[in-house]
Amino acid sequence: MSRQNFELLILGSSSASPTSERNPSAQLLNISERYFLIDCGEATQIQLRRFKAKLQAIDHIFISHLHGDHFFGLPGLLSTMHLLGRKQDLNIYSPKELKGIIELINTASQTLLNYNVNWHFTSDNSLNLLFEDDKVTVHSFPLKHRIYCTGFLFKEKPLERKIDKYKLEKLNISRADILSLKKGFNVVNEFGETIKNQEVTLDPPAPRSYAYCSDTIYSKTTAGFITGVDLLYHESTFLEDKADRAKKTFHTTAKQAAEVAKQARAKQLLLGHFSARYGDLQDFINEAKSIFENCSLATDGKKFKI
Amino acid sequence: MSRQNFELLILGSSSASPTSERNPSAQLLNISERYFLIDCGEATQIQLRRFKAKLQAIDHIFISHLHGDHFFGLPGLLSTMHLLGRKQDLNIYSPKELKGIIELINTASQTLLNYNVNWHFTSDNSLNLLFEDDKVTVHSFPLKHRIYCTGFLFKEKPLERKIDKYKLEKLNISRADILSLKKGFNVVNEFGETIKNQEVTLDPPAPRSYAYCSDTIYSKTTAGFITGVDLLYHESTFLEDKADRAKKTFHTTAKQAAEVAKQARAKQLLLGHFSARYGDLQDFINEAKSIFENCSLATDGKKFKI
Repeated sequence: MSRQNFELLILGSSSASPTSERNPSAQLLNISERYFLIDCGEATQIQLRRFKAKLQAIDHIFISHLHGDHFFGLPGLLSTMHLLGRKQDLNIYSPKELKGIIELINTASQTLLNYNVNWHFTSDNSLNLLFEDDKVTVHSFPLKHRIYCTGFLFKEKPLERKIDKYKLEKLNISRADILSLKKGFNVVNEFGETIKNQEVTLDPPAPRSYAYCSDTIYSKTTAGFITGVDLLYHESTFLEDKADRAKKTFHTTAKQAAEVAKQARAKQLLLGHFSARYGDLQDFINEAKSIFENCSLATDGKKFKI
Repeated sequence: MSRQNFELLILGSSSASPTSERNPSAQLLNISERYFLIDCGEATQIQLRRFKAKLQAIDHIFISHLHGDHFFGLPGLLSTMHLLGRKQDLNIYSPKELKGIIELINTASQTLLNYNVNWHFTSDNSLNLLFEDDKVTVHSFPLKHRIYCTGFLFKEKPLERKIDKYKLEKLNISRADILSLKKGFNVVNEFGETIKNQEVTLDPPAPRSYAYCSDTIYSKTTAGFITGVDLLYHESTFLEDKADRAKKTFHTTAKQAAEVAKQARAKQLLLGHFSARYGDLQDFINEAKSIFENCSLATDGKKFKI
């Protein structure tokens, strides 16, 4: 059996304003057919269509902070979901002020959405559980930007242990006992014999995780929230020669993003949120690789699987 | 001497939601290097860049009504104007509720724009003067939609009379007198002879005009506000076989738009604001031409000169 999906689609990689090549921030994460939209810059609904993503499959939207390049696409997306006949609830995880903005817009346009929006306000008080079901958890964690801003950590729950079928054939074990073994318990068979879990099961694949860090100044505390993460997206608005500007505007350089990946012992680093001043982005990779080898550019339309 | 510019660029032609071919409503009108943005659907700033229009040359933005497909691009455009260092004032002509929405968004993002926004609220009380300078006037006028909505009428001011240079050569007329003749006065030369204006001047070209009508149900009163207009944009969300749906949603069919053009004795009709259900738009032209011959599709990127 193949593993469940864990796939990230980049919808936008520009900071502040769109460029001819790059839209503002938005990403779509699919974990086992749960679709999480992360930030929603202007024209995100157009990007979703362009990259053939299922718009109505999105049930959870996470907004990191209220700079326009991270949420100006939300009113239009909510409206299109409504016009396409959406009925199922939508969950939005965001700073609390966003609710009032959306409500004021809907009042002005006399729009009553066909579906419920459940608002969940983020907290920047350490790791904060926002969402949990049988397969996934999502936490927010604090970032340090000019205004209130959080990152998001998406984690698979631990999978069940794998049964070693070859060994199992020789034993007389009920269906119920197999379920217990998968959960990690020992079982006793009908002859009173104890079957030790570790002798007939194998470790499951390690749970996978994804961390989203945008926007933030370089901070040594970030890594503590996301230690061992498989895939780390970290903003890198500037290159290191603009480190002063990065600090002043509460953004990060490619080198600093790589430092965070190294500190967090991440397995892979994605760079994005590039300033419009940069056309060619190869220098971002060169700079980051001097610190952290396994890194890529998270530009519009790219997909990353774990 | 060539005439001053009078040119319309279509930035979006979709109703409600964007499609892969069509953005929501937005148009850029250039009259003698005055750039008027008319409506500002989501991703208008991206369309302006795509069609190589000068974003900072826009000093006047007109918003017809507060359905999202007509203004969700405004927050992003204002932000980009700010980030690109705009200093000169921007004038926005809109329903009054828009000011509160923009101010709430700027408060949430702690954004203080580098430039002043001067707000001018439209009125749907007959023809209402919104803007006037030495060359152009702009009026709003009432449309009939589900929510408060106005159209906009852009008109050149009457041009000066043209001097018939061949006739003038034989007369002894001062420079000051020439200016008087251009304004339509008779003059008296140094010999006491009256030079009759009509004998030495020619009619100037007729002032040109453009009317924007979106969104509205078909109304026989519309034509009265725009009689004799050179170029008329009228929404045609549906074809005539959806006339019931058009009426119910306060929109217009292509045939009805052509009726308005005929009633207004317009010279040319542009159709737009097409429902996303239509791929091929040729039927819109066929239907309108049965009533009004000189009509075109106002699809994204098209330019119309008068």
